[in-house]
Amino acid sequence: MSLIGLDVGGTTMKAAISEDSETLVTESRPTDRTAPVDGILDFAAHLADRASALGSPARAAGLVVPGIVDEATGTAIHSANLGWRNVPMRELAQERLNIPVAVGHDVRTAGLAEAVLGAGHDTDNFVFMAIGTGIAAALIINNTPYAGAAGWSGEIGHVVVRPDGEDCACGNKGCLETYASAAAISRRYGENVPAEEVIARAEKDEEKAAQIWSDALDTLADGLTATALLLDPDLIVIGGGLAQAGETLLAPLEIRLVERLKFRPSPRLLLSTLNDAGVKGATILAQTTTPL
Amino acid sequence: MSLIGLDVGGTTMKAAISEDSETLVTESRPTDRTAPVDGILDFAAHLADRASALGSPARAAGLVVPGIVDEATGTAIHSANLGWRNVPMRELAQERLNIPVAVGHDVRTAGLAEAVLGAGHDTDNFVFMAIGTGIAAALIINNTPYAGAAGWSGEIGHVVVRPDGEDCACGNKGCLETYASAAAISRRYGENVPAEEVIARAEKDEEKAAQIWSDALDTLADGLTATALLLDPDLIVIGGGLAQAGETLLAPLEIRLVERLKFRPSPRLLLSTLNDAGVKGATILAQTTTPL
Repeated sequence: MSLIGLDVGGTTMKAAISEDSETLVTESRPTDRTAPVDGILDFAAHLADRASALGSPARAAGLVVPGIVDEATGTAIHSANLGWRNVPMRELAQERLNIPVAVGHDVRTAGLAEAVLGAGHDTDNFVFMAIGTGIAAALIINNTPYAGAAGWSGEIGHVVVRPDGEDCACGNKGCLETYASAAAISRRYGENVPAEEVIARAEKDEEKAAQIWSDALDTLADGLTATALLLDPDLIVIGGGLAQAGETLLAPLEIRLVERLKFRPSPRLLLSTLNDAGVKGATILAQTTTPL
Repeated sequence: MSLIGLDVGGTTMKAAISEDSETLVTESRPTDRTAPVDGILDFAAHLADRASALGSPARAAGLVVPGIVDEATGTAIHSANLGWRNVPMRELAQERLNIPVAVGHDVRTAGLAEAVLGAGHDTDNFVFMAIGTGIAAALIINNTPYAGAAGWSGEIGHVVVRPDGEDCACGNKGCLETYASAAAISRRYGENVPAEEVIARAEKDEEKAAQIWSDALDTLADGLTATALLLDPDLIVIGGGLAQAGETLLAPLEIRLVERLKFRPSPRLLLSTLNDAGVKGATILAQTTTPL
């Protein structure tokens, strides 16, 4: 019997079928932005068929979606990107597949994968921060991703680091995300230069790029300092597209964190080393389901 | 058999002896700042004698101390105010009293009292923020105060709300505590006017007082907004001396929180109604001990 792990992103759905922790196949499909829920269910049904065809019928599935998610009821409460509200995702998927389904939040589930398989496997209390188009975090507390009272935890990207700073899409000003996301780094530089190229130019001391990269590092350190003061994580794991910058990101960020945390030790800082943490986390969620 | 609850503050130690949730006596003593640990142990021993004299010998004690505390081992790791480092407080108290002793952190234990007896009794996920000489918070997560990885959680007073702002004693600039603690409100006004009088003058539209009070409210809202974005509490409970300001504090703070939380609902905001939450929390800790 196999497990299906399916990670729904804003543009791509990624999935794996695995058996005894071994991946049998991986697949991906563009996210159907006109009918995302149907697209997800169709893809999940296809994966279940494929698992059967491989001779290892799926016994459970994990479904990871963006936005606001209530893991307890398996409801996809809200996604600005995919335009849904209060979708009973678990119920729909269980009806369609006739196997148990767990539904998780994208960043929290990636954090779960880090806790079980990744950089956080040796600690029970850490923060996973994904830096990509936006910035969001998963709070791993007592070895479990903590959703908050209503599934809204981890919105570090909207912590204000520059009062009266640049406009954020959320309606506020000076949010971390407006300075330090990959999208923001590219937008602030202009000319459609992607973030990785801005960072490369900063490394070559191009003045404009260096300033933008320095702003990103400063504001990331500001946001993480607030997080460390509030939550006292043992470790901060950085994932998402910007983590590809590797030591170019980690080394200056570490210095800035230590500078800011005057009276307490700085948490350790590590890069994520997991590929497809969302799919891996979805598979872990599938594993935790109980038979229907 | 009775329980001893003892709350060690920077200037005063407060205690209660109680039986079946009823307080038999309360006592207080000035904190011995030259030999604080001996002073605490002497006071605790005196309370145990008194309990016996009342015909209800103490079966356990809860000891609440400021600074950095490791609840698991009962170690008072560090207190800048009382000048100790790595004091095995539980061990020392158990030796002296010969009954089980639990050791807790002052703000977290007050948060525990709020969770069990106070404003947070109807929810499992809330933040208790004490505003007094300093500002600190207890994070109540799944109905339990969360200490963080090493006992440093809840340092909201040192979240930077005004980058390059006023100097904080911690060595940083622009910490929440430098604008919004009772001590800061008084200091910023000058002339040794206490915070409550500054607030009263602000209510009468005295310009300087109004500006200082408005800064305090703005920065409190900034710190709580960051906390809400990260942790998604159901509720924020405000305690400490400044909570005496009542609706004068709560009403404008609520408006500011809603303004700042653009894309998510604002958590509920309540004032603490517990007297001596530290002593009450210490008594709850005593209740949770197991016989020696």
